[in-house]
Amino acid sequence: MQITAAQLAEMINARIEGDPDVIITAPAKIEEAGPGTITFLANLSYEHFLYSTQASVVLVSQEFKPRTKVQPTLLRVDDVYGTVGQLLAIYQKNEADQTRRAVSSYAVVEPTARLGNNVRIGKFAVVEDGASVGDNTVILDQVYIGPNARVGANCTIYPGVRILRDCVVGNHCILHPNVVIGGDGFGFAPDAETGVYQKVPQVGNVILKDHVEVGSCTTIDRATLGSTIIQAGVKLDNLIQIAHNVEIGENTVIAALTGVAGSAKIGANCRIGGQVGIAGHCTIAEGTQVQAQSGVIASVKGPDAKLGGSPHMHYPDYLRSYAVFKRLPGLLEDIRKRLKALEG
Amino acid sequence: MQITAAQLAEMINARIEGDPDVIITAPAKIEEAGPGTITFLANLSYEHFLYSTQASVVLVSQEFKPRTKVQPTLLRVDDVYGTVGQLLAIYQKNEADQTRRAVSSYAVVEPTARLGNNVRIGKFAVVEDGASVGDNTVILDQVYIGPNARVGANCTIYPGVRILRDCVVGNHCILHPNVVIGGDGFGFAPDAETGVYQKVPQVGNVILKDHVEVGSCTTIDRATLGSTIIQAGVKLDNLIQIAHNVEIGENTVIAALTGVAGSAKIGANCRIGGQVGIAGHCTIAEGTQVQAQSGVIASVKGPDAKLGGSPHMHYPDYLRSYAVFKRLPGLLEDIRKRLKALEG
Amino acid sequence: MQITAAQLAEMINARIEGDPDVIITAPAKIEEAGPGTITFLANLSYEHFLYSTQASVVLVSQEFKPRTKVQPTLLRVDDVYGTVGQLLAIYQKNEADQTRRAVSSYAVVEPTARLGNNVRIGKFAVVEDGASVGDNTVILDQVYIGPNARVGANCTIYPGVRILRDCVVGNHCILHPNVVIGGDGFGFAPDAETGVYQKVPQVGNVILKDHVEVGSCTTIDRATLGSTIIQAGVKLDNLIQIAHNVEIGENTVIAALTGVAGSAKIGANCRIGGQVGIAGHCTIAEGTQVQAQSGVIASVKGPDAKLGGSPHMHYPDYLRSYAVFKRLPGLLEDIRKRLKALEG
Repeated sequence: MQITAAQLAEMINARIEGDPDVIITAPAKIEEAGPGTITFLANLSYEHFLYSTQASVVLVSQEFKPRTKVQPTLLRVDDVYGTVGQLLAIYQKNEADQTRRAVSSYAVVEPTARLGNNVRIGKFAVVEDGASVGDNTVILDQVYIGPNARVGANCTIYPGVRILRDCVVGNHCILHPNVVIGGDGFGFAPDAETGVYQKVPQVGNVILKDHVEVGSCTTIDRATLGSTIIQAGVKLDNLIQIAHNVEIGENTVIAALTGVAGSAKIGANCRIGGQVGIAGHCTIAEGTQVQAQSGVIASVKGPDAKLGGSPHMHYPDYLRSYAVFKRLPGLLEDIRKRLKALEG
Repeated sequence: MQITAAQLAEMINARIEGDPDVIITAPAKIEEAGPGTITFLANLSYEHFLYSTQASVVLVSQEFKPRTKVQPTLLRVDDVYGTVGQLLAIYQKNEADQTRRAVSSYAVVEPTARLGNNVRIGKFAVVEDGASVGDNTVILDQVYIGPNARVGANCTIYPGVRILRDCVVGNHCILHPNVVIGGDGFGFAPDAETGVYQKVPQVGNVILKDHVEVGSCTTIDRATLGSTIIQAGVKLDNLIQIAHNVEIGENTVIAALTGVAGSAKIGANCRIGGQVGIAGHCTIAEGTQVQAQSGVIASVKGPDAKLGGSPHMHYPDYLRSYAVFKRLPGLLEDIRKRLKALEG
Repeated sequence: MQITAAQLAEMINARIEGDPDVIITAPAKIEEAGPGTITFLANLSYEHFLYSTQASVVLVSQEFKPRTKVQPTLLRVDDVYGTVGQLLAIYQKNEADQTRRAVSSYAVVEPTARLGNNVRIGKFAVVEDGASVGDNTVILDQVYIGPNARVGANCTIYPGVRILRDCVVGNHCILHPNVVIGGDGFGFAPDAETGVYQKVPQVGNVILKDHVEVGSCTTIDRATLGSTIIQAGVKLDNLIQIAHNVEIGENTVIAALTGVAGSAKIGANCRIGGQVGIAGHCTIAEGTQVQAQSGVIASVKGPDAKLGGSPHMHYPDYLRSYAVFKRLPGLLEDIRKRLKALEG
């Protein structure tokens, strides 16, 4: 992105103070900004950086009064944070538009695969027989779209993602690098006599609805039969394990390194911390919040429960019990002394 | 798979009630089954679905008596669950047979690599110098088989798996997408004066014996010297970390997000839950069960111990202690009141 | 590597006893060593293996006196362990030198990418527009180096690594298979009315300084704005999550499956165990040690604190409290009995 301060001011409806012709190429933080960057000052505890920054342009509020002369061009706006969001979105869209919309000559798209309009398929990517990719979707390099898998419109699928046979990704989804959709569920039946495990065939699939985002190296297993379902608007962080036949409700967010065991059903609008474990076949009510590192071992009726501990309990109660736990040796010692004194 | 009810009935030795010529293309759950699918009714709490299902064929027991007329063709068998397993295995085998047995023209197999009979090598897969792949093994797209690595017969290696230099995979193994076999062990020696870490060379390998299955994004590090060994029949879930020089005994199963630190030795037939940590150099006896999220910090003599907590303890004892922990603030309050009353 | 005992003796300044012409091809552990291997005897509790080993050559100390005649050629050195390290480094260097220094004809290096001298780019690897790779760096097969990403000199980047747009890797770094550098940070703003999450654009990058090593499937997210920074000499194990805008100080080591949340700052020379969680925006002082499976939920002033538990506390105190926890049911029972007796 190359744009002058004056051009940008017009786009974001800002008032210019300083050189209108200075060129901006990228956004930056005020404490790190170099020449050619645009930054912002909203929180006044960062004001001192304004007087030394190398940035070419700084967004400030209409009311802000610098204590001394400043080097960069100032762009005054009504809502600094709001404008930053707008600016970053413009910047990111601009970057994305630079990516070529085309099928790389190094990609393999099998004859029976169907591609929508304005699709990009990256180098060494594979779209297998019977698979489909919707309009405006970007499939980056080295991605695998398996037989009969379907990816919707307006998605971004980053390098190294694997979407296996028969799985379905909705519209406006983002899958970060090395995500795996549709590995086999972990299902084995032990032979009663020998203890040797026989594989239970996993013939279901995974369905991601619209506006789902999945973090790097997260794995979502296919259902044994039927579908593992991630509802619209769900956001999954990196390195999460979602087992076979799980269902996750709309707009639920889950932080990194959490594991959800087979057939668990998580309601809508839940907030689940990092490194949480959720046992198989649990049903978690809408709006449940689970503290990082907790272990949910049974269904939660909720709604809007706050859980902590392993096994889980009401989180404020966990903190109260833990506060006592921290002082246990001293508390016990005191009780014993007093008992001894009483016992004479 | 396209088959008529009559053809299937002959294969699974079923008795037909209804249209024998209806065509089946896929299995499904009774509550979700659409036209062209086959489903089953074993648990009678699902019976009401039978009267509304769109499925073309339903497996039922010999004894089952519908309360009213049913639309789908019924196939009566002696053991419904057993037949479902048989059916899914037929379906999955059939799907696998459709995959072309050949070396893709987009794969690179180096001149000194050796391929068995009936091997498939997928697009953008690499088999490096000195590597070998056994009979009937399917190497899917974008897999990496490093120099001198060996993969046995009848394996399935999914897209994005990396099997590094000198590592060995047995027969009948399944490696799910993005698994890493043979990354360097995490070994560093700090310089006593500067605190800077020097890498300890990792020149061993990883050996997977027969019938091992490894879940998506699981990582198994090579030994510093010698081998990290996964014995026959071991089943590892997704996102598991197995460190250098670990040994895991036959038919042990480990759930997702568990970490096993360097040189730990886990016995046969253990059952280890998700998010468990096992400390380095521990020896865990045969048949040990470890509850999810526990931390095993020392050797376990067992056999057949049940562990929970972090650091680990006898699991039933952990639950008893935890039950008291949950009530600690109230219990302490009560004791204090009674002590005060006694002290006058 | 093929070398005779005599040639090796000269390289490591050893004294030969036995056949000087025996050929060595690989190192091995004494209890597993086969013909053609070299092994060592330093810890005398392994001495009995010396009399049965199939190894061709064994390193021993100058002083060591075998109890009986031995089959392998002995190489006597002053410092057995030191020589083993030297030997493994020679062996590994030798293996690495065999890898061809060249750009594979199956790789794609875009026209505006810049490659240093003596660079290797593996098969199906991609180096995108504006990216650069420093001298002597080895990029293995199926790696992705995104637009404008920079990789320094003398690095090894293993198969399946993804280094996304604008990210920077220093010199002498090692990235193990399927590592992801620069996936988007996990940033979403909920719509106050609908609960639907809007993506916060993530336009920063990731910077790895020199001598950083990153384990298989570890993920490091790009900063929202600015950089996620991994300082020189940091060693990260497998399956670690480093969130957006985190900074990790020099020579800090982190074990597998640990998660560091957004904007946390970890000091230099910390030692962080496996499966640890560190909350967002915490500052952890230099030299802090964190026990495996702990949860650090607030800043740690330190230096050199030792932490355990979740939420974290002083680790020795955690162990003392936990020792009481293990005995809680019995302790409570005893207190109650004594109270009852006193209350008459």
